[in-house]
Amino acid sequence: MYGLIGKITARPGQREALVNILLEGSADMPGCLSYIVSNDSEHDEVIWVTEIWESKEHHQASLSLPPVKEAMSRGRPLIAAFDEQIELNPVGGHGLASPATP
Amino acid sequence: MYGLIGKITARPGQREALVNILLEGSADMPGCLSYIVSNDSEHDEVIWVTEIWESKEHHQASLSLPPVKEAMSRGRPLIAAFDEQIELNPVGGHGLASPATP
Repeated sequence: MYGLIGKITARPGQREALVNILLEGSADMPGCLSYIVSNDSEHDEVIWVTEIWESKEHHQASLSLPPVKEAMSRGRPLIAAFDEQIELNPVGGHGLASPATP
Repeated sequence: MYGLIGKITARPGQREALVNILLEGSADMPGCLSYIVSNDSEHDEVIWVTEIWESKEHHQASLSLPPVKEAMSRGRPLIAAFDEQIELNPVGGHGLASPATP
């Protein structure tokens, strides 16, 4: 498995729109076991995206999916900064979708 | 929904044991939609725990569950530091378990 925690700061007033774009773009990604978009409780413009993938290659491949590319191009103007990205080796847990990929 | 991202540093050589304790202690928690334990890819002693709950109250109540209390008392000596805890308002995504709580 492969995971990412990403912190994104939206431009002022754009967080909700950006969250919706991220959710729309990530609805159907092969090899994605978990993809959750959250608002930071304390900071008004901050979004956290937590992602768990079957492999790093599945994540890499997702960046070429048309809905993902389309979401990235719609979302980019709403982003003030990519603040942090943490790479993870997930060990286990609860709430991982079943693999549904060839 | 309510979420947490937590960064924990294990004492040297204790990360694997601590991850196992965290996973054992979190197997059956009412209102928990996702609980994933990951190793940091870059830092040998660092663990990230990402949690999504139906509500903040469900998370709070989980701290009183006997398996969670037992895991906390077994895990505490293996922890060097709780480095960070970020509170989230999850909006949506993929890989959330179905609610199964009264």
